[in-house]
Amino acid sequence: MPLTYFTPGPAQLYPTFESHLKTFVEGQLGSISHRSQQYRDLHKFTVDQLRILLNVPDSHAILFLGSASEIWERILFSCVELESFHLVNGSFSTKFCDYSSALNKYAHHLEKPMGEGFAANEIQVPEYAELICVTHNETSSGVQMPVAEIHKLKQKNPDKLIAVDMVSSAPYPDFDYNLIDTAFFSVQKAFGLPAGLGVWIVSEKCLKKAESIKKQYSIGAHNDLPTLWKNALNNETPATPNVMLIYLLGKIAEDFNRIGVKTIRKETEQKAEALYKFVEKTGGFTSFVKEKANRSQTVVVVNTETPSADIIKNIKSKGMVIGSGYGKFKDSQLRIANFPATSIEQTDALIHELGKL
Amino acid sequence: MPLTYFTPGPAQLYPTFESHLKTFVEGQLGSISHRSQQYRDLHKFTVDQLRILLNVPDSHAILFLGSASEIWERILFSCVELESFHLVNGSFSTKFCDYSSALNKYAHHLEKPMGEGFAANEIQVPEYAELICVTHNETSSGVQMPVAEIHKLKQKNPDKLIAVDMVSSAPYPDFDYNLIDTAFFSVQKAFGLPAGLGVWIVSEKCLKKAESIKKQYSIGAHNDLPTLWKNALNNETPATPNVMLIYLLGKIAEDFNRIGVKTIRKETEQKAEALYKFVEKTGGFTSFVKEKANRSQTVVVVNTETPSADIIKNIKSKGMVIGSGYGKFKDSQLRIANFPATSIEQTDALIHELGKL
Repeated sequence: MPLTYFTPGPAQLYPTFESHLKTFVEGQLGSISHRSQQYRDLHKFTVDQLRILLNVPDSHAILFLGSASEIWERILFSCVELESFHLVNGSFSTKFCDYSSALNKYAHHLEKPMGEGFAANEIQVPEYAELICVTHNETSSGVQMPVAEIHKLKQKNPDKLIAVDMVSSAPYPDFDYNLIDTAFFSVQKAFGLPAGLGVWIVSEKCLKKAESIKKQYSIGAHNDLPTLWKNALNNETPATPNVMLIYLLGKIAEDFNRIGVKTIRKETEQKAEALYKFVEKTGGFTSFVKEKANRSQTVVVVNTETPSADIIKNIKSKGMVIGSGYGKFKDSQLRIANFPATSIEQTDALIHELGKL
Repeated sequence: MPLTYFTPGPAQLYPTFESHLKTFVEGQLGSISHRSQQYRDLHKFTVDQLRILLNVPDSHAILFLGSASEIWERILFSCVELESFHLVNGSFSTKFCDYSSALNKYAHHLEKPMGEGFAANEIQVPEYAELICVTHNETSSGVQMPVAEIHKLKQKNPDKLIAVDMVSSAPYPDFDYNLIDTAFFSVQKAFGLPAGLGVWIVSEKCLKKAESIKKQYSIGAHNDLPTLWKNALNNETPATPNVMLIYLLGKIAEDFNRIGVKTIRKETEQKAEALYKFVEKTGGFTSFVKEKANRSQTVVVVNTETPSADIIKNIKSKGMVIGSGYGKFKDSQLRIANFPATSIEQTDALIHELGKL
């Protein structure tokens, strides 16, 4: 009996994953040259499907890298000559900030405790910061920053570049890419694929910035933005790409487009509402994120009175896997992923079992 | 009717690939947490199998990254404070050298035309070079540097670190890792897997060097060596790894170990000998690499009198795919991969069809 994974990544694989994988294997696509027209068509298909799904304008390229963490580094190399600015309220936003320091940039940051979120009007971006780094969805704490607040932050700071980590939320947030200079995600979260691919959406403005920084500083050697961009114009990558995951991502994005991104977003909200409602009304559980506007729609984090390990074990015996808390919250929290791969019926079944505890 | 790929990467998938992939899917391994004991066991299995296969001592870690190109960058960050030295005789050794310049290191190099190789006694390593970068097998030209020459080069320069690119030859070369500080390969060549994973074998000496460089310079932020090393001690990776390819690599390495690496190397030599013998005796074909000692055992490069595209098309109609020449040799050369995934019988069949042209 297969388990249903409500873990926040790696997560439940999307129901169509197996049939797409079969097509990939039968077509021997694992052996095709990454300099062939067959590959370029495959690459373009995935880019086109993602462009439709996320409403990405032609001013932005869609690039394929090894992971979202690699993209953190490439964004900092490309968009920051000297100073970056980070909104930090959890483990992943902290790491993004640490990467900037590790590249010997000056990393300004505004920090809040885990579980709390940011609003645009409380944020003062330091004068010399070139890039504002925002985490749309903190996988560690279940805090999201509302899309409207991210848009407002850019509108208040039109001369700064803004980078949005949507690793564990895309395709849920409906961004206006005229206001988002760069954003990125990985495929093992809401796209329901095995890990190993990061997707980088990046504007021509970032490219220009990288080219300007390059005159004086290193912008990295591997997957540097100008080289990635030049190859992408030809539907290729500088080095041999992960053809398998690029193919599978295109097919899943096509599936999402068939359903319609609006429907996927609405179902995400319905399932999230059911989960938060259950948590609020059930003894032994409370929502970690107090402010409703900051509650993630894709990763629901729950404080538990009994040790979370006991709950996880019990639920696993019913055929469902939920995540533990992150870091110091490991034993006192649950993290329940709410991605498209888990249906309304499966979410109801989870709620039903949690209710019996 | 499936095609047989004799292309130098992406290449023919190993015959057991499909059954291992099935096990991966059925076990839902694409959803497991990369911080679980189940993952750590899987990770350790792959490292252990590679350690046996390649005879890697405990002084060296075996690390998983996105691609061999990423590893070029990480080696240069970790092992070079100011100056590197490169043996350049083809496209991939050129790129390794260019990466060093892109990181603002001073990249000394000794260059030979494509098709020619290096011997240890003709190499004078510049006094201040900290790292010698050697390409064991130039995928672009089919030139290999004999293992004994690489060992001798290190013995002549015991105070320098040496890095060996064995992207398109591992597990063929039988290195003494007491003489090799770091080496690396990717899985879409001789391991017969889809692309998306690079394997980095790296010694404690390189780690110490990275830690020393870090006091003054950036050694990168993503997958920096000290962080990779620390995680590897616990059979983990800093970011979410490509669990699927790490699993599959472990199973293929186990298959190789069952056959025995000596047998695999012997069969590689037998198949290469048959290919070179055919090329030498057949009108219209000549071996691009004149010096026998420098002829690659894993990528056979052939000059053709008739346009190579015609030959490739003809052979494809017989169910076999061979590679074109690299770069400016695209139309006048063939590249025939000789990896473990293609059997002696399949190689004979290819020779048979080439002979009928």
